[in-house]
Amino acid sequence: MRPTPEDATRVTCVGAGVIGGGWVAHFLARGYDVTAWDPAPDAEEKLRRLVDAAWPALIRLGLADGAARDRLTVAPTLEDACAQAHFVQESAPEKLELKRDLLARLDAAAPEGVVIASSTSGYPMTEMQTGAENPGRLLVGHPFNPPYLIPLVEVVGGERTEADAVAWASRFYEVAGKSVITMDRELPGFIANRLQEALWREALHMVANGEATVEEIDDSITEGPGLRWAFMGPCLTFALAGGEGGMAHMLDHFGPSLKSPWTRLEAPELDRALYDGMVEGCERAANGRSIADLVAERDQGVIDILRATGRLPGRREERK
Amino acid sequence: MRPTPEDATRVTCVGAGVIGGGWVAHFLARGYDVTAWDPAPDAEEKLRRLVDAAWPALIRLGLADGAARDRLTVAPTLEDACAQAHFVQESAPEKLELKRDLLARLDAAAPEGVVIASSTSGYPMTEMQTGAENPGRLLVGHPFNPPYLIPLVEVVGGERTEADAVAWASRFYEVAGKSVITMDRELPGFIANRLQEALWREALHMVANGEATVEEIDDSITEGPGLRWAFMGPCLTFALAGGEGGMAHMLDHFGPSLKSPWTRLEAPELDRALYDGMVEGCERAANGRSIADLVAERDQGVIDILRATGRLPGRREERK
Repeated sequence: MRPTPEDATRVTCVGAGVIGGGWVAHFLARGYDVTAWDPAPDAEEKLRRLVDAAWPALIRLGLADGAARDRLTVAPTLEDACAQAHFVQESAPEKLELKRDLLARLDAAAPEGVVIASSTSGYPMTEMQTGAENPGRLLVGHPFNPPYLIPLVEVVGGERTEADAVAWASRFYEVAGKSVITMDRELPGFIANRLQEALWREALHMVANGEATVEEIDDSITEGPGLRWAFMGPCLTFALAGGEGGMAHMLDHFGPSLKSPWTRLEAPELDRALYDGMVEGCERAANGRSIADLVAERDQGVIDILRATGRLPGRREERK
Repeated sequence: MRPTPEDATRVTCVGAGVIGGGWVAHFLARGYDVTAWDPAPDAEEKLRRLVDAAWPALIRLGLADGAARDRLTVAPTLEDACAQAHFVQESAPEKLELKRDLLARLDAAAPEGVVIASSTSGYPMTEMQTGAENPGRLLVGHPFNPPYLIPLVEVVGGERTEADAVAWASRFYEVAGKSVITMDRELPGFIANRLQEALWREALHMVANGEATVEEIDDSITEGPGLRWAFMGPCLTFALAGGEGGMAHMLDHFGPSLKSPWTRLEAPELDRALYDGMVEGCERAANGRSIADLVAERDQGVIDILRATGRLPGRREERK
């Protein structure tokens, strides 16, 4: 039986490497009973080391009531691990056959109706769920590293996943303290990885051509746009470049420069539908805040981040 | 006569819109005497309003000794504005002919040897310096909006710019509290804009194809990779995805997936030179810090940013 997302208290994590172990740390810190299973002989020792290493950070973040490391059990078999689960998170190595077989075994072992999520960053669930008897409860819950600190989880089902299972998982992750994006279609790289991969590929081209060094690339982000992206995304940030006119003015003004060869990625046609989509999307995202409100928010956010990361400019002692 | 970068106390800002006015606010806050000029009839009123709006943020950031808004003078003519300058920052609209003519006039008006920087984000100095009698002192100092908060300045000369002028400007900006990347060649979009433009183009494609909404794109960054990019750039961040093996392991492991169609930007060939460039660049950037050191730094940074931006997870009151 599937409990409600609010009543789920027992999480099973299958695969206890960097991602799986990070999930274990996250669920423990949020007050869950966690059962882990990993076939590697030294898996338990490594996992407990990972949780111990993460714990001071999790204390600083704030533990949930009752959260404790001794609520972690390492099970001897996959079947034992799944027997009492309210939710299963699979984080095995990225190999399609392995994931397909493992998900079929998890489906056979987990109580009826319990949702099983895969941490995969590479495979669509449609290709991974083919071996399972009950594919309807299998879906992707893609985290970011480390899962105990970065809030984002991208949730998406495969062709045979039930809509109820997707809705259950999205709500469950929210209750468990994550930021959830629920996608309505399978997309290679989901959303965040596609975006960061585009930036990453341009960076590789620049290094390959001697146009910038690794350090310059990193500095250009941390001292520049990265300061804004920690709290205001690229769309809303660019809307502010349009002044009081917002995204519409920005597209009117900078739309033509989409054709200039600033990156190796070809720009899409800025047709009416895309234009409207961007402008209306930014209006929804602003949710009643004026451009001046957003500018004030951005400024305060940058200051907070500069202070939090020890980068407030000092007094200029070198000058009288 | 060109003073030393440390002895420069008088800055002239030409063009007083969002960027030029932002420069004025920055230099005032860092304790400079600032003279501004802008041909628009209401420029002075708008400029003083912009400085007043920015000032509370600048107080929170920490003003330099002696910094004061009344050290701003608005000059009646370009020639008056430049007569006593130790440094000139041009932030006129992005029109090539206009910039070319304006830079020639600034060159004629500014004291001998004084460095003149353009805020342009679009034109190479080689194309803008053709009308000036002394092109050797003209260069690009490209800021990010708002210049009084975002530290990055990209400095690059044109074909006829003297190396001494580039070195002077880079040092001057550092003394004035900026983070400087000095580029050895003209590159459309410089570094940071090329990188963010790649991400931006992928975002536009996703909206155009209905793959993600504006809000999902923004959330995927602010709740995901954007939390790291405020203090650790994309290269070093990805190196941590390689575990103890760092960037080398990351490229071994994920190199093949560069060929998968995650974005519309084609990946470069991951040949030996690029591989070594990335690995050695990350080692230089780590500067003696181990992967474990970097992981601890990343974790602390993310926590600091979540706290600074009010996003520490609360206690889970919804569960017993």
